Amino acid sequence: MKRVLVTGATGFIGRACLAPLAARGFEVHAVQHARVPESGEIGWHAADLLAPGAAAAVIRDVRPSHLLHLAWYAVPGKYWTAPENLAWVRASLGLYEAFVAGGGARAVMAGSCAEYAWGGEPLREGHSPLVPRTFYGTCKRALSDIVLASGGNAAWARFFFLYGEREYPERLVPSVIRALLRGEVARCSPGTQRRDFLHVADAAAATVALLDSDVTGPVNIASGAAITVRSLAERVHALIGAGQLDFGALPPDPDPVVAADVRRVNEEVGWTAPADIDDRLRATIAFWSQP
Amino acid sequence: MKRVLVTGATGFIGRACLAPLAARGFEVHAVQHARVPESGEIGWHAADLLAPGAAAAVIRDVRPSHLLHLAWYAVPGKYWTAPENLAWVRASLGLYEAFVAGGGARAVMAGSCAEYAWGGEPLREGHSPLVPRTFYGTCKRALSDIVLASGGNAAWARFFFLYGEREYPERLVPSVIRALLRGEVARCSPGTQRRDFLHVADAAAATVALLDSDVTGPVNIASGAAITVRSLAERVHALIGAGQLDFGALPPDPDPVVAADVRRVNEEVGWTAPADIDDRLRATIAFWSQP
Repeated sequence: MKRVLVTGATGFIGRACLAPLAARGFEVHAVQHARVPESGEIGWHAADLLAPGAAAAVIRDVRPSHLLHLAWYAVPGKYWTAPENLAWVRASLGLYEAFVAGGGARAVMAGSCAEYAWGGEPLREGHSPLVPRTFYGTCKRALSDIVLASGGNAAWARFFFLYGEREYPERLVPSVIRALLRGEVARCSPGTQRRDFLHVADAAAATVALLDSDVTGPVNIASGAAITVRSLAERVHALIGAGQLDFGALPPDPDPVVAADVRRVNEEVGWTAPADIDDRLRATIAFWSQP
Repeated sequence: MKRVLVTGATGFIGRACLAPLAARGFEVHAVQHARVPESGEIGWHAADLLAPGAAAAVIRDVRPSHLLHLAWYAVPGKYWTAPENLAWVRASLGLYEAFVAGGGARAVMAGSCAEYAWGGEPLREGHSPLVPRTFYGTCKRALSDIVLASGGNAAWARFFFLYGEREYPERLVPSVIRALLRGEVARCSPGTQRRDFLHVADAAAATVALLDSDVTGPVNIASGAAITVRSLAERVHALIGAGQLDFGALPPDPDPVVAADVRRVNEEVGWTAPADIDDRLRATIAFWSQP
């Protein structure tokens, strides 16, 4: 029996993983800080993972065979430098220790493209240098080094640029969509920088496929097709058909390219991103169109 | 008032730090797992730092202005790969969080030359690549990355090859000394590899000087004079005047040189190793000569 404990299950990525996990035959348990949602399908457990000993207690209750650890401090504008990053490394190590000690079989944890030195070539697991520029990236990279060197059956999902329903509204895609939906001017950078964008539902499908595989080590979760911010914004504008884009209203981004090599997730995990993103953008626009 | 909390205070390095700390005007507190030694000068506190919440409780009791964190899993032959390394990163982060939250002013923690990629040039802080070969080195390096990027007033003491009184008897220097003192053959590798050896009392003096300075970041604690294992063993043999050395009885070491650049500790901390090590070797031999 596959029984998974999901942390961060009410977060941006975690919420999108719950149905795909159940569809793959996992008994799904989720740990959540305070309020525990009502649900028939998911076993919800209330715990503050930052509190000493809390993770071990949840592991004892659930006895999961699989761990999907997505919880982290993620407040936009603050998470790059927040001291909470250190506490989340500490809590994540305690969670992983308890999981392994409790007989857990396989773990997947959330990493980030912010672990890499950003540069021209598509960033590749095990090849591209890991030189994080931020405290967040340093902490994620340090945690991955420890977990992946500990000898257990674990993979590290390096997410690139995700968008979709329930993203923080201050972030790029929601802020452009919301301005255009109001018929206003969406102020953008020149938009020439290329990024690997992926819808959160696709990221969740890839992550769940990774958990359900035997692939270990770091795995980029990305589309493999980096596009300019300008072309993404113009696609959103075409689908909404209202408002205006003002490229250059914001300063240019210092990093021309952040692209992902996706051979591992494509060939080893067996997951590939959909080529056409219009459906994904329409669903995202529909979410932000709700009153 | 300078009040320091020392972890690992009954260990190889920690024990040697206590008198130098008191001599520099620190009020010295020490945390120790189980049995708390009797002492008039040192405030001993019993706690298992690996137990969730234990570090925070000691910090609340002591309210230290300074932290000297030396405790770690150190069983010879096991510590390179032991899972306890992960637990010690977790516990060290919890300790550091509690120290900072409690108003702590300055911390020094124990690192290792095992964090570097070993190679020909003297290993230099901030320049030589950090590519640990072992789980121990990976965990130390990951902890240092987090602590040093967290923005606090902290230094990271990278110890090289220490020897001296109370070292684990299985290790190189004690095993040679003990065989020669028994009049037996000390079985050695060919001994052509060069290493930076330092007596533990000198390492302690450097570490305490570092704690009492305002130098931040990684600092090699080493002599700066790498010598061959053969020349060290021959010096020990000359001082003992008994037994025999058999170079080549053990397999050669795969790493020809592990040398340290000591500009930071010399110029910024203001500490330099003594040039003549015969006194240090005599003290070490005297220790192992005791019945």
